[in-house]
Amino acid sequence: MRDVCVIGLGLIGGSVLRAAAAVGRQVWGATSAAADAEASVAEGFDASTDVAAALRRAAEREALVVLAVPLTAVEEVLRTVDEHAPSCLLTDVTSVKTGVLTAARALAPSARFVGGHPMAGTAESGWRAGNAALFGGAAWVVCVEDDTDLGAWAEVARFAIDLGAHVVPLTAASHDEAVARISHLPHLLAAVLASVGADGGPVAMALAAGSYTDATRVAATRPGLVRAMTEGNRDALLPVLDEALGRLGAMRGSLASTGGLAVSINSGHEGARALADARQATPSGVRVALGAPDARDGLRALGERGGRITALADDTVIGEVR
Amino acid sequence: MRDVCVIGLGLIGGSVLRAAAAVGRQVWGATSAAADAEASVAEGFDASTDVAAALRRAAEREALVVLAVPLTAVEEVLRTVDEHAPSCLLTDVTSVKTGVLTAARALAPSARFVGGHPMAGTAESGWRAGNAALFGGAAWVVCVEDDTDLGAWAEVARFAIDLGAHVVPLTAASHDEAVARISHLPHLLAAVLASVGADGGPVAMALAAGSYTDATRVAATRPGLVRAMTEGNRDALLPVLDEALGRLGAMRGSLASTGGLAVSINSGHEGARALADARQATPSGVRVALGAPDARDGLRALGERGGRITALADDTVIGEVR
Repeated sequence: MRDVCVIGLGLIGGSVLRAAAAVGRQVWGATSAAADAEASVAEGFDASTDVAAALRRAAEREALVVLAVPLTAVEEVLRTVDEHAPSCLLTDVTSVKTGVLTAARALAPSARFVGGHPMAGTAESGWRAGNAALFGGAAWVVCVEDDTDLGAWAEVARFAIDLGAHVVPLTAASHDEAVARISHLPHLLAAVLASVGADGGPVAMALAAGSYTDATRVAATRPGLVRAMTEGNRDALLPVLDEALGRLGAMRGSLASTGGLAVSINSGHEGARALADARQATPSGVRVALGAPDARDGLRALGERGGRITALADDTVIGEVR
Repeated sequence: MRDVCVIGLGLIGGSVLRAAAAVGRQVWGATSAAADAEASVAEGFDASTDVAAALRRAAEREALVVLAVPLTAVEEVLRTVDEHAPSCLLTDVTSVKTGVLTAARALAPSARFVGGHPMAGTAESGWRAGNAALFGGAAWVVCVEDDTDLGAWAEVARFAIDLGAHVVPLTAASHDEAVARISHLPHLLAAVLASVGADGGPVAMALAAGSYTDATRVAATRPGLVRAMTEGNRDALLPVLDEALGRLGAMRGSLASTGGLAVSINSGHEGARALADARQATPSGVRVALGAPDARDGLRALGERGGRITALADDTVIGEVR
């Protein structure tokens, strides 16, 4: 198994470091955040604040380099990768994929880059918030572009599966559009609701029950993290935000005019059912041979149909579609 | 202790019946929904589909009558109350208070009516979804208007406390404005999000994680129930919906122009903190003598400050404010 070098030791990077160690990988980490490095070392991990040295070691040992820095720091770290481990096998765990892909192509052009995004997290951040089990049962998007090296892709996918996740193969653009809907819009609506709720003063806070608590939970996330993901996914998020505004405006219009909200509420109920159905459907098996000429199309089609990859055997991807 | 007659045996009414029986009250119920009546009887409760007979018995025994029918059925049941138990002690558990107050004054003018609303529930409905512990730790608004009979109010408040809730005294108007923010808007935003998410197709459903699941949970509520509460609270909900639209539109504008969402996201984060602070603050004790000339003002001030009543001793309300 290839060694692993993790750059960035916050919630996600720190969890990758722990999880990789737990499955027996040789793993070391580096971060510019001294507190995270210290906390990591205190728990017995091989970590430091010397990112360049960690990358030189990755180059020597042909390790998989995992970029787990905030989106706003990705460009700077890519330049460091290009300087110290220019041709490494490289992936990232950032919540926006198109921007990182563009930056990787421009700033670390010799790296064998495969974008990734584990759909796991909490409202917490920093090393101490992480744990080795964070990726268990989670979806982990591993990007497939027309020029993706499928050997590199398979190594990153196998790593995600080793850490307990299932892999969803998608283009960066398709990922960004989907997460705008199911992650970035929820963060923005939670912020709207938390603001409107708090404007109601102590009475509103005293009456807030489950529906409010659940719907505003992610508004407690560190604002810098939410800004990075939403502002970093601007192009995909704007049309989704317009769709939400259109739907909310239609509700407002209906309530003010006829007083009836049946269409909007029924649509939301159908949406809730779509999620429940997707989760309860009986899966059917799918295989994709990575050596086939249309392997990239086959992988992306699996992802687009809501499928997941649960294992890689030799050069065959084993997955399921619900 | 006064006997209790519950009209409507769905999630809330069924839970009231169970909880009242559990604390030793003589209690019987009636509902026009035969399935709920049968299920209730099968579990050993005194229930039927004869609402008129249940109300006549309430009149004979001077029972507390609890209206737990859907908002859309309140007017019809109030007429039946006026016919069979015209001067009873009457409360309700409906999620909108101004409309029920107006209807009670018009349709059951001799009843000693005190509006109520337990802030508890699930996305489920019907007798089988209920349980005796539903109100444990929940806020239960018991309305105080300028003409509220404080003797009747104290009986309803004591009943709510007996069932495990704490009481929040508010006017119907103040209740309706607060729940528009922390209950009805969350339902509408959940419907918007569930619609926009499902529009993303199988990929979006496959990637949906905690933030989406939590934020759309209440979109699975029976649409008729959501319509009843939101459409029934139209006057209070419209300005709250406008506030949400304004905030979401401001986000859209910022993202499209400067690309920055700091103001909006920071505001949401402060809102989340306001809720956490309200829940973590150390409470200080408050007492209100129900015999005092300004008792109604004292009760409402307690509610407006986010306070709660945890006990009634003789004619003194014992509460706390955080």
